Amino acid sequence: MKRISMDESGAFIERFTLAPAVSGVLDGLTFAVKDLIDVAGYRTGCGNPDWRKQHPPATVNAVCVEQLLAAGAICSGKTITDEMAFSLLGENHFYGTPLNPRAPDRVPGGSSCGSASATACGLVDFALGTDTGGSVRIPASNCGIYGMRPTHGRISVAGVNPLSPSMDTVGILASSAQTLVRAMSVLLALPVSQPQKPDRVFIIREAFELCDPDVSETMKEPLELIREFFHNKVHEISMREIDQQSESGLLYDWYEIYRVMQRAESESCLGSWVAATNPEFGPLIDESFQLARNLDRNLIKANWELREKYYRLMNSFLGSKDLICIPTAPAYAPLKGSLIKRESSPGGYYARTLSLTSVAGVARLPQTSIPIETPDSPPIGISFIGRSDEDAFLLSVIGSLPGFSFQR
Amino acid sequence: MKRISMDESGAFIERFTLAPAVSGVLDGLTFAVKDLIDVAGYRTGCGNPDWRKQHPPATVNAVCVEQLLAAGAICSGKTITDEMAFSLLGENHFYGTPLNPRAPDRVPGGSSCGSASATACGLVDFALGTDTGGSVRIPASNCGIYGMRPTHGRISVAGVNPLSPSMDTVGILASSAQTLVRAMSVLLALPVSQPQKPDRVFIIREAFELCDPDVSETMKEPLELIREFFHNKVHEISMREIDQQSESGLLYDWYEIYRVMQRAESESCLGSWVAATNPEFGPLIDESFQLARNLDRNLIKANWELREKYYRLMNSFLGSKDLICIPTAPAYAPLKGSLIKRESSPGGYYARTLSLTSVAGVARLPQTSIPIETPDSPPIGISFIGRSDEDAFLLSVIGSLPGFSFQR
Repeated sequence: MKRISMDESGAFIERFTLAPAVSGVLDGLTFAVKDLIDVAGYRTGCGNPDWRKQHPPATVNAVCVEQLLAAGAICSGKTITDEMAFSLLGENHFYGTPLNPRAPDRVPGGSSCGSASATACGLVDFALGTDTGGSVRIPASNCGIYGMRPTHGRISVAGVNPLSPSMDTVGILASSAQTLVRAMSVLLALPVSQPQKPDRVFIIREAFELCDPDVSETMKEPLELIREFFHNKVHEISMREIDQQSESGLLYDWYEIYRVMQRAESESCLGSWVAATNPEFGPLIDESFQLARNLDRNLIKANWELREKYYRLMNSFLGSKDLICIPTAPAYAPLKGSLIKRESSPGGYYARTLSLTSVAGVARLPQTSIPIETPDSPPIGISFIGRSDEDAFLLSVIGSLPGFSFQR
Repeated sequence: MKRISMDESGAFIERFTLAPAVSGVLDGLTFAVKDLIDVAGYRTGCGNPDWRKQHPPATVNAVCVEQLLAAGAICSGKTITDEMAFSLLGENHFYGTPLNPRAPDRVPGGSSCGSASATACGLVDFALGTDTGGSVRIPASNCGIYGMRPTHGRISVAGVNPLSPSMDTVGILASSAQTLVRAMSVLLALPVSQPQKPDRVFIIREAFELCDPDVSETMKEPLELIREFFHNKVHEISMREIDQQSESGLLYDWYEIYRVMQRAESESCLGSWVAATNPEFGPLIDESFQLARNLDRNLIKANWELREKYYRLMNSFLGSKDLICIPTAPAYAPLKGSLIKRESSPGGYYARTLSLTSVAGVARLPQTSIPIETPDSPPIGISFIGRSDEDAFLLSVIGSLPGFSFQR
């Protein structure tokens, strides 16, 4: 592979080297930090120039950064994020679009776009991202790398700028399964785990039905491999078997809950800053803030009830050694500059993508995206979701999977 | 009981009435909101005049406030908090000490001091508080009312100023078990539950050994009642049966983890604001910020590992229908003005109190404090702690308990 320079990647907003004080299980590995996460002495810009100007430098490293440094990893700098962690595209109006090295005409995906780019370009071994509605998983899928969102609440978000606290998580983007497992195990404070096999793997029919035809085609081989590898543990099911009250079985219902909660909470986190200082945003992000501001807040209570219902449903359906398998994204990364306006139809890119990512977001579940490598198509990811709090089990399965690289 | 006016209570920092738009399960109930939580149009002062001045009014209600209003409850105003939610005393240097009506010479307890006072004074039916290290449970104990901290992450903290995100929770202070159950059920989006009985109730020996002699004496009757009520389900155990690797079995070990995490995270949340604006604090809070600033951050990784170990220990020890029983506090509320300096010895008020409250804080467990009413001593609470995510079960037991009122 051609070596890509930092400048070519456009992934970093600030470069520096923080050497670890001690040696540990991450010795020799380098990592980058999404610019939504504090590094002592630097401003956390959150992808927006006005935010950067108005907020003082962080006095200390975020807890997750301290954990990685204390495990021996070397920090290489801070990476571009979509403004305030909104957007799944990774096209920052002010700071540019980090390179997606495996599909240079396509977006890297957001909001952890710089972290995904830096990792995919081989500039770091792994990177810290955040994931509220897909911001680690989607760039991992787009850039052909590993990405994991943990169970909500299991990795400290202290020193991480909030977007929607009930769904915000710190996650990892990594170039290999082994690196992902090592870095996540540090953050989750997990003991070293043995390879494990699941009791059941549920392939969700409605999730695969959301895919573009070309993506469906690409998913066939990995699905075959999954069926071979897990053999008689694999069950193809409908969402209606999880939610027996649902008439539609549609994942779009999850997206609708996600949407209300994310708007309700992001307005709480960022609305008064916007109202008081009137910062400049790129057009798409401006629209996101308007949508949050205009939310009918009478919807909050009912949607919180639905959220908790779905959370309980998932945790009663899934056993501790069960996994769900879905596509990470329903489509290849969009071409750069192709999504100027957020379309709201159920068939649009945003709605279908968030229908997939909202399952883990709404139900607080851990999810890992695994890259599918084929010689003739852009990268795309396939995901395993575990039961809430079963991050260790999910990682032990991921660490023992053969991978999905198909050379012809 | 003599009627106490709003002015006499000193509980409120702002009074107003927000009528609910709809009717619901909380119809007719009034509630107050700790001034760490957003109400649209008002500044969230966090108990500190400089913070209040420097931050714009909230644009929207916090999610928890929306939920209560949408269930028909009436909001009566915002209540005094200890500065930035630090301190267990409830003596705000700038805004005064809200009245503890059942022990007027004693502190109400903090940091949800105004919420506890307003509830105990009968000015509202219940109040929103926040609890990181005891800030709902301790004022509930001191003021002779009910208080609950939920499982971490189950009630939205959007619109709530953070202190230590991995332990911050929104909780309720209430004048009766029934009101507590109703309000918590709305926030947790729980279906109405039937009364249930626990499989096992573990009375933790080391927790009761932390009590002052007079408190131990007061605990005797309620413990007898608990033994009668739950009969052969009650087991008196040592912490060593939960943590078999622990040599000491001391709850002080939990406090040490709590202390590192709380300082690490609060510096992330508030440190850069302090460094950039040099706000004025009361002496005790100033000391808290200094302690956070001076934390050796190399301790973070190891203490996060201990935290997760204790979390896993608790969740493997406790079944879903098991409860732990401990005193809420080891001592009656301190006399007003008696704790000028934070003492750091293991036998001091802060260390013993936080040793008890850190169990739920560190292990993310739900805890309810129940008032013990005796004619001849100040109020004190006894607590039940449930397994993580078993808030519904804990509430169903609390709702069916006879209460601990001893008239002689």
